[in-house]
Parts: sequence; C-alpha cells; structure tokens
Amino acid sequence: MQRVDVSEPDGLDVLRHSAAHVMAQAVQQLFEGTKLGIGPYIRDGFYFDFDAQRPFTPDDLKSIEKTMQKIINQGQRFEREVVTLDEAKRQMADEPYKLELLGEGDDAETAAEGAGVEVGGPEITIYHNVDRSGERVWSDLCRGPHVPSTKLIANAFSVMRAAGAYWRGKEGNPQLQRLYGTAWPTKDDLKAYKERLAEAERRDHRRLGRELDLFSFPEEIGSGLSVWHPKGGLVRGIMEQHARTKHLQGGYTYVYTPHISKADLFAASGHLANYKDDMWPAISMDEETDEDGNVTKQGQDYYLKPMNCPMHILIYKERGRSYRDLPLRFAENGTVYRNERSGALHGLTRVRGFTQDDAHLFVRPDQLEAEVTKVVEFVVDLLRDFGLEQFELELSMKDDDSGKWVGSEEYWESATQALRNVAVGSGLKMTEIPGEAAFYGPKIDLKVTDAIGRRWQLSTVQVDPNLPERFELEYTAEDGSRQRPIMIHRALFGSIERFFAILLEHYAGAFPHGWHPFRSGDSGG
Amino acid sequence: MQRVDVSEPDGLDVLRHSAAHVMAQAVQQLFEGTKLGIGPYIRDGFYFDFDAQRPFTPDDLKSIEKTMQKIINQGQRFEREVVTLDEAKRQMADEPYKLELLGEGDDAETAAEGAGVEVGGPEITIYHNVDRSGERVWSDLCRGPHVPSTKLIANAFSVMRAAGAYWRGKEGNPQLQRLYGTAWPTKDDLKAYKERLAEAERRDHRRLGRELDLFSFPEEIGSGLSVWHPKGGLVRGIMEQHARTKHLQGGYTYVYTPHISKADLFAASGHLANYKDDMWPAISMDEETDEDGNVTKQGQDYYLKPMNCPMHILIYKERGRSYRDLPLRFAENGTVYRNERSGALHGLTRVRGFTQDDAHLFVRPDQLEAEVTKVVEFVVDLLRDFGLEQFELELSMKDDDSGKWVGSEEYWESATQALRNVAVGSGLKMTEIPGEAAFYGPKIDLKVTDAIGRRWQLSTVQVDPNLPERFELEYTAEDGSRQRPIMIHRALFGSIERFFAILLEHYAGAFPHGWHPFRSGDSGG
Repeated sequence: MQRVDVSEPDGLDVLRHSAAHVMAQAVQQLFEGTKLGIGPYIRDGFYFDFDAQRPFTPDDLKSIEKTMQKIINQGQRFEREVVTLDEAKRQMADEPYKLELLGEGDDAETAAEGAGVEVGGPEITIYHNVDRSGERVWSDLCRGPHVPSTKLIANAFSVMRAAGAYWRGKEGNPQLQRLYGTAWPTKDDLKAYKERLAEAERRDHRRLGRELDLFSFPEEIGSGLSVWHPKGGLVRGIMEQHARTKHLQGGYTYVYTPHISKADLFAASGHLANYKDDMWPAISMDEETDEDGNVTKQGQDYYLKPMNCPMHILIYKERGRSYRDLPLRFAENGTVYRNERSGALHGLTRVRGFTQDDAHLFVRPDQLEAEVTKVVEFVVDLLRDFGLEQFELELSMKDDDSGKWVGSEEYWESATQALRNVAVGSGLKMTEIPGEAAFYGPKIDLKVTDAIGRRWQLSTVQVDPNLPERFELEYTAEDGSRQRPIMIHRALFGSIERFFAILLEHYAGAFPHGWHPFRSGDSGG
Repeated sequence: MQRVDVSEPDGLDVLRHSAAHVMAQAVQQLFEGTKLGIGPYIRDGFYFDFDAQRPFTPDDLKSIEKTMQKIINQGQRFEREVVTLDEAKRQMADEPYKLELLGEGDDAETAAEGAGVEVGGPEITIYHNVDRSGERVWSDLCRGPHVPSTKLIANAFSVMRAAGAYWRGKEGNPQLQRLYGTAWPTKDDLKAYKERLAEAERRDHRRLGRELDLFSFPEEIGSGLSVWHPKGGLVRGIMEQHARTKHLQGGYTYVYTPHISKADLFAASGHLANYKDDMWPAISMDEETDEDGNVTKQGQDYYLKPMNCPMHILIYKERGRSYRDLPLRFAENGTVYRNERSGALHGLTRVRGFTQDDAHLFVRPDQLEAEVTKVVEFVVDLLRDFGLEQFELELSMKDDDSGKWVGSEEYWESATQALRNVAVGSGLKMTEIPGEAAFYGPKIDLKVTDAIGRRWQLSTVQVDPNLPERFELEYTAEDGSRQRPIMIHRALFGSIERFFAILLEHYAGAFPHGWHPFRSGDSGG
C-alpha cells in the first residue's frame, strides 16, 4: 500500500484514479449489468467508460454522486493483487472489455501492453476495494497506484458530465458512455475549479460567436467551414490589417497563391506521400478526347492546398537568386484546407479550412540565427499589440536514440544551438523538449497564457533544410558557387480563425475600444 | 456592284473583307493545294483560315504580301453571282470546307445558315475576282459585299501574323492556320494602327508581369492559376487596402466565406443546373462505413465556388432581418474558381481562379434606386483614385419579343427606370442595350477608356430579385408583414487580377509614386 500526498500533482493523479474506481463501483451498484471500459485520470479529473443498458441522465449523475459519497464514507481500502493471466481472466470473467484487453497476448507481458493505461509492466495486477469486514466488494484490472482508503477522496469530488466514446477510441468499435468526474484535495479547490469552468464556459468562443453575431458554420456549406458575419469580419479585418502593416514594416513582402494545384506539386513536396490523409480528396479533371477517341488533353488531379510552402517555393524558383537577395521573406494570409475528422472539429479552433498568417523565409546558413531572432522579437511584439502578455518558448530538438532524423550531426547541433541562443536571448521562459523536432529540423513554439490562465500554443518557427533540398533551391554565393538556402516556416497567429477564437475568449467578447478599422498604420494594440 | 466609302466604318469593313479575299487568292497562288476555311472582317482588320501543307513562316507572310500587291495592282473586279445549291457545290468542288458548309442543308436557306458569316439570306452567292481580260481568276462562297476593284485596297494593307484555329472554332475539329491581316484607307492610318499595336505590345501585361517580376503562372500549379511575386503583391495589396478603406467608409461590411461548399448550396442557388460547365469538377468525399458495412457517414460532393453570392445569402439568412436593418452591404474579396477552357486563358485577364471585389446589397424595393445611385457614384470615385478618367455606362434591358424573362412587366419597368434614372443622373455617357439583361433583372455596366484609348468593361451592377426568391429571403416590414428584399450584385474592379492587368497596361508598368503601402487611409490615387 502506497503513501500518497494528494496536495502534490502526482498524488492528485492517484487520488483521481481512485475516485474513478469509486465512480465505477457506484455505477455498477446502481445499474446492474453495466460493463467496464477503461478509467484513467486526466487533467483536472478522471473519466470511466461504461457499456450501460441506457444513456445516463442528469438525475443518474446525481445518484451516482450520492452512491460514491456512501462508498467514500465506508472507508474502503484499496488492495493490490498480482495475478497470473489465467487468474486475471477468471476474476474478470464478467467484463468482456477487460477480457479483450487480457486476451490480446498469450503471455502476461503482451497482455499487459494490450491493456494500455490499466495494466503495466511485466505483472498483471488487480485492485480490489475491500470493506471494513474484509470483503472484496469491487475489483478492476489496474496497474495502480491508489490511495490507501476511499476516505481520502473526502467531499471534494464531483461527477461532471456524460459523453459518448468509442471503445479504445476507434470509430466502428462499440460506442460506450464516458462519465467525466473531478476530485481535489479540498472543497475550496473544487469550488475554484468549478468557477474556472464556468468562466471558460462564459467565454466559450462558440457561444460568444453566436450571441455577438460574429461567425457561423452553415449546414449548407459543410461542417468545419466558417462564414464570418459583418462584426466578426470587422475585427478580423483589423487584426489582418495590423499584422500586415507590421509585416511590411518588418521587411516581409506579400505574395498571393491559389488554393488549388495540380497533384505534381504536392508529389514533389512530399505531401501526397506523407500527408494525404489530412488532405481533401482530389478534383479530377477528365481526360479530353476528340471524336476519334484521341487524347487531346491528359486527365489531371488537382488538390486543395493543405499548406502554402510549396507555392512560395515556386515563387523563389521563378528566377535566379543571389546571396545578396537573401533573406527573402514571403508572407501570405493563405487559406488552406485539411480533411479533419468530423469528431475532431471544434468551433474556430479546429476547422476544415483556415487561413494561416504564413511566411517562408529563405536564408543563407550564416543568416539563420539572426533571422530567427528577428522572428521571435517580431512575434512577441505583434502579440503584445493584441493585449497578450505572458509568453514562453519551447525548443523542440531531436533526441539521440532514434533513427528518424535526417541531416548531419553538425547541422542539428548548429541549428539547435542557434535556436537555443535565440530562445535564451529572448529573456522568455524556455523549455527544451528532446525528441519533439520535425524529422528535418528543430523548431521553437511560442505559448501564451490568456486572461484566465489557460496556455495556448500559437506561433511556430520551424527550421527546414529539407524542402529546399527536395525542390533543389539554390542561390549564387559570393564566390560564384551554387549554394542551398535554408527555409524558415513561421506562422504567428497560427491560424487566423483560431487566434480570433483565443482573443475572443481572452477578452470575453469585449475587444478593446482602441481597435479601429481605419487607423491601420498605428492601431491594433 | 456596290459603291463603298472606305473612310466610313461600314465601308472599311467591306474593304477589309475584300482584302481577305485578295490574301486568300495570293495564298492559293503561292501554296498549291491549300484549302479555304472562312475569312471575315474583324475589328481593325480581317483574317482567313487555311488548311495548308505546312506552317506559314515569317518569310511566307512577306511573299503573301508581295503577291497581294500584284493582285491589287491588277485592278481585279469583284463580281457577285447568285447560284443554286447544286451550282455552288459544283463551283466549290475542290474546297472540302466550303462543301461541308453547303452540305449541311438540303435547301439553299439552311445551307446558307450553315455557312454562317460567309453566306446569308435565302440566296447563295459566290464572289469572283475577275481580271482585265474578263477571266474569273479566283472565287469564294461569300455573301459580300465587296469593293468594286482590288485597286481600292491601295497600299495600306498588311499581313500581320499566323495563328492556329480549329475549323469552326470547335476543339477536335481539324486545326487550320489563321492569317491575320489589316487594311486601312490611307498609309497614315496603317502607320498609326501599327504604332498603336506596338504600344499595346509594349504595355502587354503578360510581358510586363514577367519583366517587372510581378506574377507568373507556374506549370507545376496548372494553367490559368496565378502566383503573385513580392512586387506584384505589393501593388495588389495597395489596391485592395485602398478599396477596403473606401468600402468601410462607404457603409460596407466585410464578410469572409470558404472557397468550397457542399453541392447542396449550388443546387439551391441554381449554379449546378445552369452553370455547371463553368465550374470545376466535384471533390467527392467518400461514404464512410463501419466494419459491418453500415453507412456511418453519407458520401458528399463539394465544389469550388464559382461565385460568392450563395454564401453571402446564407449570412443574410443567419438571423431574422427587419426593415430597419436594410440596406445590408456585404463585401468580400472572394476568390472564385471557374473551369475556363485552356484556349480561352489569357494572362491575368482570363484565368481559372480569380478574386472578385464582390459585394451583395440586400435592399428594400423602395431603397433600390438610391442604393444603385450610391454604387455608381462609389465606383466612379474609386476608379478615379486609380487614375482612370473616362467612363461610360451601358444599361442592359430586357426586350419585348422573347419569352426568356421572368418577373412582372411592372417590376421590369420600375427596375429599368430606376437604373435609367441613375445612369442619366450620373452625367456619364449612357447607352441602352435592349435584350442584354439577365433573365431576372436589368444591369448597369461601366466601361473605362485607358491611356491608349482602349475600352474595358469593368464594373457591373446587377439587380436580382431571383436569388432572394430561390432562397426565400425575408425581412419584417414596418407593418409586421414578411417581405422579400432585392439583391444587388456588384463588383467594381470586377476581378482584381484583371483590373491589375488593365492598370499595368494603362500605366505601362509605371505605377504612380503616390501609391504607398502604409498610407492606406488616404492613398491609392
């Protein structure tokens, strides 16, 4: 039995996991025949999935809470038992989903892997809830750990809501009911948490967007495709115009590119090989033939662009470039289309078409650090104009124990060191994250904290020698030799739609009075 | 034989048509076995199509001119002969294309129709060139009229260039060679014309776009899809920003809509029924099924939008509208995609994707005239800012002898009278064109004359009660009744790409110094 300090984050996770067991026990007491899915702790709480006879109602949630309170008051102990695979299967004989997890391997280890969050390591363990008489009143396949007694869950818990969830998260699997709950060290903590939730709900950009008549998602157009109403369009226009003015002042030039291209381009860029699942299906232009059946025009697939980079590269390639031309900074508010699954869509923050405030910088290797420095200064300056104040950086690096990286050790070292210098020089809090880099280069992510303390990932600055290689980009160096530039991909708002949603929630719908559509040269902040 | 005054436009057309015959006679003298297509006069000249053994070279063009000069010097007479169908076929026995024209009907009248520009009316006529000895040296199926003698063509003619052309303009038909020529009353006229051509060539936006590094059409993306380089993007940005500021000051609000929509929307708008050939093919989202083959998501066709109107209508419909809300003026720089035939593409003026500076005004019937007045004042003011000075209007009206119009006589009368009042009130030159209206309403087109005297159709203001009817748009009138608004479609630049091309040619690439990207509030002119 473990000692647990529930005022520490790790301890809190254990507390919440134990609360999930208590909730599952309560559900099975109240709704006979309900089968168990999995039930992990999550951020700020926990959930448990159930295969029940009927949907849980709001009244059910109250009954479940009451029953949980009784269980907690009983002071049940959590008891850990290491079992063989056969014994585990025997004890879980009435739980088909647990048997499925156990049945996936012939030995304990692979069975444990199959069980994911519930079972870990080379042992299979079952946790029992034991009442004061010593009787095992409820059990679950689980790797633990748990609090010693249900008493520790105290009164600071709540069953929050029910939602649908596919078994093991896979569409096509049986749909289960997921009950979300939360648990905290003290009643005050729980109260504060519920207030934060209410505040977030009050600021929900989907609600505000509707109430303030800012944007909508007409059914006739299709899910995940937003239309912006006049008032939303006004604010978006101010945002775009301010950013545009800043970019022009910052030495960027704007380019314009189409929303579709022949498949060739995305074959050359690697998107069709590596990113096709995220792209919309092709537009197929039929082959054209004359009356005798001779082909007068080849058939051709076009695709909606999922990213702007390949088109900016074509502009780079339109003429010979000299070392004196670099850095080139091509900016575009480029609308891209991605085939997000309907289940993943969420207001303006996860959509099927969105506009990146995108730019691609083509730089000489000796310019890399200075350019990235400028970009980081630029983005912080720009985001401050919009009233954001708390920033931190994450440096995504390669790690050493995987073969998935391309490029020389020397390149990685110098590029990573350049980004580290920039991050340190910025004076912002910086975290290094090994293993999170793209396969071709390190990046810096910028996160902001909003008015109610939520952190959002916004801007990304990505070093990329890979696309210049694929497209054989060149410039003539001072000595006349042909050299390859490095690309920097960067989006500051990220997606204009998503950034608007974040600002809308940050300001709870009350955008500052100072924002004005006509004073574009000096407004925005 | 007709008397012809070649200093009048009609006479000049006759002169040019006669020159086309002389050119064809010269070609058949020089290149034995060459077969004749058709050879009409056109603006500023004429052409003739030939099925020749080999492509005409620049040297060939010079030889043809020399031979034409000889024919002209011979003073051949043009002689008209009315013939029966059989006789026409006998005389044209060596000309398969002429026989095809003649063979399309069993009687003279339909044969004449089949022959299009060459033969007209109930008679079939052949024109003969007759030399001084009275011999018919060359003949063509032709409705005439012609000048009395080749002498009248004098020295003021020229064979300009060769190009490919499908027989009868239809892809899949044999490809012929088209020789373009020109002819004028005097040598000075010819010289002035050639200077105008050289000036237009010097200003050709495709050439300037390349030389000044403004835009291009990368092969990898597909024909008719432009990318804008930094310098072109800079000017375009200034144009857009200036127009945007003016629109905001003029009471317009900006909306944003996606580039794709489910087929439903374009079915409702009528585009799929009436405009599908001009649309890009569908993007087909596959039906999704689970493991048991049950449909979990219906298949769905999406289309690139060919117009913005249906989406602006959805924004109108997003909430109830009152008479007090009108007029609503939704503006958008909306990029639309149209499946133009490759042969029709031309630089930035005819493309497959372009951005309309589009707006849709939703007005009460009693507001129609005042709103159209404002629009016409607005566009003239805006275009003057860009340095254009000569404007005229065309009022497209319904005519009375066709059943293709919808809507009451009363509606047509009042809408047409409203537009006429606006046009007259504008003080601009105005031409009324019966029969040119859309089937649902009259429109005003604005034409501008550029620095070298060329007229361009730019802005359109279209009255439309039809889409509000199709989408059942409503507003609540003062008396509480449900009323239908009228829409006004208007684009001022028309297409931003095309307008940029026109300005580029107007300024011969030298955009005014006053245009500046930062002073958006007061710049542009």
